[in-house]
Amino acid sequence: MAHFGKLAIIGLGLIGSSIFHATRRGALADLTVGFDASEDVRRRARSIGFADTIADTLVDCVADADLVILCSPVGSYQQIAKDIAPHLKNGAILSDVGSVKGAVVKAVGPLVPKGVHFIPAHPIAGTEFSGPEAGFKTLFDGRWTILTPPPGTDEAAVMRLKSFWQDLGSQVDVMDSSHHDLVLAITSHLPHLIAYNIVGTAHDLEAVTEGEVIKYSASGFRDFTRIAASDPTMWRDIFLNNRDAVLEVLARFDADLSILKRAVEQGDGQTLFDAFTRTRAIRRAIVDLGQDSAAPNFGRDKR
Amino acid sequence: MAHFGKLAIIGLGLIGSSIFHATRRGALADLTVGFDASEDVRRRARSIGFADTIADTLVDCVADADLVILCSPVGSYQQIAKDIAPHLKNGAILSDVGSVKGAVVKAVGPLVPKGVHFIPAHPIAGTEFSGPEAGFKTLFDGRWTILTPPPGTDEAAVMRLKSFWQDLGSQVDVMDSSHHDLVLAITSHLPHLIAYNIVGTAHDLEAVTEGEVIKYSASGFRDFTRIAASDPTMWRDIFLNNRDAVLEVLARFDADLSILKRAVEQGDGQTLFDAFTRTRAIRRAIVDLGQDSAAPNFGRDKR
Repeated sequence: MAHFGKLAIIGLGLIGSSIFHATRRGALADLTVGFDASEDVRRRARSIGFADTIADTLVDCVADADLVILCSPVGSYQQIAKDIAPHLKNGAILSDVGSVKGAVVKAVGPLVPKGVHFIPAHPIAGTEFSGPEAGFKTLFDGRWTILTPPPGTDEAAVMRLKSFWQDLGSQVDVMDSSHHDLVLAITSHLPHLIAYNIVGTAHDLEAVTEGEVIKYSASGFRDFTRIAASDPTMWRDIFLNNRDAVLEVLARFDADLSILKRAVEQGDGQTLFDAFTRTRAIRRAIVDLGQDSAAPNFGRDKR
Repeated sequence: MAHFGKLAIIGLGLIGSSIFHATRRGALADLTVGFDASEDVRRRARSIGFADTIADTLVDCVADADLVILCSPVGSYQQIAKDIAPHLKNGAILSDVGSVKGAVVKAVGPLVPKGVHFIPAHPIAGTEFSGPEAGFKTLFDGRWTILTPPPGTDEAAVMRLKSFWQDLGSQVDVMDSSHHDLVLAITSHLPHLIAYNIVGTAHDLEAVTEGEVIKYSASGFRDFTRIAASDPTMWRDIFLNNRDAVLEVLARFDADLSILKRAVEQGDGQTLFDAFTRTRAIRRAIVDLGQDSAAPNFGRDKR
């Protein structure tokens, strides 16, 4: 089991607060300290009480910490790293939870002092809700967390962080940051871009009212609106920081969509049927692997 | 309350079987008779027992029926209408549950005998599961059903069918078939095309294995796989029969996606942030209107 003396978390939203909840569940740290750039968020975090202390400054938060995790939007990392670098303890682990990893390695890596182990991480878990109230202790249970230690990272530190995420409830994989970014571009970033886009398209159609879109949303649309309700700042930063991989999978998506579009235009039922058939197996595998509910409609219907 | 003597349902999948379950719950018919083109489906339907009788022929199913509802894939309607037309009772209502309405009016309308009230309908409800075992009695509760009676349809018959759907648990709207087809193109058909497409794109990427896509699917992708697990025959027929409206909204989707793509290419964070912000309000409205669960992740996480 991984146990840390002091755990410091910067950014007290859904993920940061969930790490605190799961840390308390597992008694994984002697002292837990949080910080958020927003005074209002700090106040709300204090009243929830998921950390021992909510510090008023970055420096107080990270001083003497054995594990520091950045849980703010990716675009804020570089400035934070500059601010905390002189105050990081020798031998500490500096990690994060950002949805992109290559850009984080590039932006933060050069700022990390010698003697501090920099190990980027990404828990593949979340909901469409944001803020310190959104967190809960089981968020990571059964999900996957990916670590992307730069070449030459201390093995013992990687193993310690791996144990920590396992104790938070997660399964852990290790891969290089550029592969991570491509995998997430297709499993997460493109789905979000598409979802945001279709909800926007529906919003702008003149011939169909927003009231109609809302009333009849149970026919498929409502699922996209859940994803498109995710935090805008976080997602802006993801697309700004994973440009190449997103554009690569978007180009593939576009090319595939042209094929379906042509099939619709030409009334080519066989192409449509074949495309709609092979996708069922992937759904089955996801449910079989415990990565989604087997219940119809995610179990949201009252039976 | 609507009460019918004999209710006949042709096509015993998710929707047909759910209508039977909800009819029994509300005691809405004296006699319920079902038929399916597949002998295996008829056998399974008999063993479930949601209808009084499962007939072995179309003619036995519809003979003397006061309400006949087509619940098979839209592509099968025209032949079925030809086969049953001579056997429909004078004064009966002929309806359906197809996800497209203009093509149904065109294909079936001319075949309906004088004295039979032809009222196309579409319950906006479903799950990703298919077959007679998939149905349940609360499927329509709180959802919307759209009726698209052709001009000149008997008003009393429309009111009777409207009451029937309300007694099945649904709310009911009436509109013309071409508006229905445009509304559904954006709320249902395009979302399904996009979902099928992205699951296919992920499947075909060489640089990311299918195992990785499945393991890391909780980051957004898994939601699309649910929709893309829907019945391929049904969806093929929808796209073959709502071509113009689907191509219209697809063109809008494409144009909007080009804007987001350019913003990603150019690192235009403001455009991305604005696009990602306005979509939250639609989600809230859908939840407020009772058309989706307010629970994070559709409530599928164990808390």
